[in-house]
Amino acid sequence: MEKGKKASPEDEHPRKAFGWAARDSTGVLSPFKFSRRKNGDTDVTLRILYCGICHSDLHCIKNEWANTVYPVLPGHEIVGVITDVGSKVNKFKVGDKAGVGCMVNSCRSCPSCKQESENYCGGLILTYNSIDTDGTMTYGGYSDTIVVKEHFVVRFPESMPLDKGAPLLCAGITVYTPMKYFGLSEPGKHLGVVGLGGLGHVAVKFGKAFGMKVTVISTSPSKQKEATESLGADAFLVSRDSEQLKAAMGTMDGIINTVSAVHDIAPLINLLKPHGKMIMVGAPDKPLQLHVFPLIMGGRILAGSCIGGMKDTQEMIDFAAKHNVSADIELVRIDYVNKAMERLAKGDVRYRFVIDIANTLSAA
Amino acid sequence: MEKGKKASPEDEHPRKAFGWAARDSTGVLSPFKFSRRKNGDTDVTLRILYCGICHSDLHCIKNEWANTVYPVLPGHEIVGVITDVGSKVNKFKVGDKAGVGCMVNSCRSCPSCKQESENYCGGLILTYNSIDTDGTMTYGGYSDTIVVKEHFVVRFPESMPLDKGAPLLCAGITVYTPMKYFGLSEPGKHLGVVGLGGLGHVAVKFGKAFGMKVTVISTSPSKQKEATESLGADAFLVSRDSEQLKAAMGTMDGIINTVSAVHDIAPLINLLKPHGKMIMVGAPDKPLQLHVFPLIMGGRILAGSCIGGMKDTQEMIDFAAKHNVSADIELVRIDYVNKAMERLAKGDVRYRFVIDIANTLSAA
Repeated sequence: MEKGKKASPEDEHPRKAFGWAARDSTGVLSPFKFSRRKNGDTDVTLRILYCGICHSDLHCIKNEWANTVYPVLPGHEIVGVITDVGSKVNKFKVGDKAGVGCMVNSCRSCPSCKQESENYCGGLILTYNSIDTDGTMTYGGYSDTIVVKEHFVVRFPESMPLDKGAPLLCAGITVYTPMKYFGLSEPGKHLGVVGLGGLGHVAVKFGKAFGMKVTVISTSPSKQKEATESLGADAFLVSRDSEQLKAAMGTMDGIINTVSAVHDIAPLINLLKPHGKMIMVGAPDKPLQLHVFPLIMGGRILAGSCIGGMKDTQEMIDFAAKHNVSADIELVRIDYVNKAMERLAKGDVRYRFVIDIANTLSAA
Repeated sequence: MEKGKKASPEDEHPRKAFGWAARDSTGVLSPFKFSRRKNGDTDVTLRILYCGICHSDLHCIKNEWANTVYPVLPGHEIVGVITDVGSKVNKFKVGDKAGVGCMVNSCRSCPSCKQESENYCGGLILTYNSIDTDGTMTYGGYSDTIVVKEHFVVRFPESMPLDKGAPLLCAGITVYTPMKYFGLSEPGKHLGVVGLGGLGHVAVKFGKAFGMKVTVISTSPSKQKEATESLGADAFLVSRDSEQLKAAMGTMDGIINTVSAVHDIAPLINLLKPHGKMIMVGAPDKPLQLHVFPLIMGGRILAGSCIGGMKDTQEMIDFAAKHNVSADIELVRIDYVNKAMERLAKGDVRYRFVIDIANTLSAA
């Protein structure tokens, strides 16, 4: 780029691309012409087939985290087919099925990167709404193609359905990594899952695949049948029923808390055994009330966790494929995306929208 | 005891004992005649030489945790000499120096007990203000003797000073156990210690004994000299100086937070590296504000911890003896104890009062 002259998204890179982007905080998505960089030595190019709709996408298009740069083109649960590989690419060949999650680059040299936790790298570049190494904005998966460093691309095993597998790249890894990190992946242990949405329903499936006892904790009694019959949870607690919670006190080895609304965590912490762990993967926008005493008296842990590293992500996809874990989805057309966002805001989806990019996105 | 007839503390057991107890929530301590059980098969009897004054003692005598049964006789940092051993006692002989901390019994069969975390046993019996297995109240170490199951008694190594070693039995183990449990005991790691009181000053000493870099974080700039010069801390941050805190963001592997006043933990969490851990060992009586986002973005941990198991306690005392770790104390007479409590309430002690029981407590 010439100094002082900023190229438009359509012209800043050599390869034409097309997707749907939001132009302002109304969050309305509409057709958007932009461009992708040429495929570098360590890059692969994906023709995108499917892209999941994550709640983060909704927050971002409406600038609810106050960091959105418009136009923003969301999507970080991307599955596609490789159409180009750089000369130094080892893992992929043209025609491979592959996935891209929330990250497209990191510094590769800090302690977090060296420990394969690129997700905590200070120089992390996110799949969209992030400034790339060349100073241009990154654009996500509600689009026809993407060019990504191969390190940040995972192989999709043959047996993994491409559409139902897409949400694993964010929702899946978000719950899988803390389960592994905190030892909540051992047969016979008791896992609580708070909130039965995009993240929660996958956490239940992973818990059962690990051989755990899984209890769903939800505000909605109406979800009981689905939790126990469709998803295979062993038990269900209504979080507003203090008698139910009291009866389950001290019984859980760990809890994956997916709720991003402000809520009372004290009764949830009391569900934990001594040394039990509650992992927060939903981020309420206002502070929660933390009673320290129940943490101290049980030697309990409250932790946060954000997606996972690339090694974990590949391991998660492979584990999921082997154990038939994938997301329950509603496949939608790209021109349904604004309606899908409306429904997502109301929690009206079981459990993840996935956009059928290949069959419905066209620049025409 | 005969049914319907409750014996007095002086008569409920066969062996006469004497100490100082509080009769009501004024918390004033005064001479108190009571009794101790006869030494059972697995019991040892200690003639008490020293007893530390813990902040918990102050909370309890004033009923600030609303669970005090009067008369209450506090003290759980007890050091003495063994004067009697039961027929099944293996670890001790008459004349040994020994210590008793916060616990005198537990169920010995629950998962916590089996994992040598008796401190989290649901049937834990505390050293004072607790109901013993025979239904009588337990009385603590502001007294001449105590009878305790040998499992709950630790050996005092020859090189450990008895007076300065006493506070290790509560303050010491409270910081030592989480440091070990969370891997905050490895040379070269960076430990933050929030609050420089009874617990904090011992945490600094253990951190240095482990070979760590130790930074003290305190509201009082006046403590800087002491922290770095007397206690050997490597750095000092004034917790109200947001510029200082900002400069130290993301640098600490772990933090031991000893503050029991309500305080803002958000800037402290931000001091942690990715996967860093802040352990709360002080219990504010009102809830803290928990911003979940900084926990999530760094994969950070907030945990509580309460003293430690008996195996840990013996290991801690042995480690402390080997590395010359003990508390900085002000040795006081038993008739100074009410004044000591007043000063403790104001934080006017560097860093622990210890009562010289052997030389100043007398029934006469």
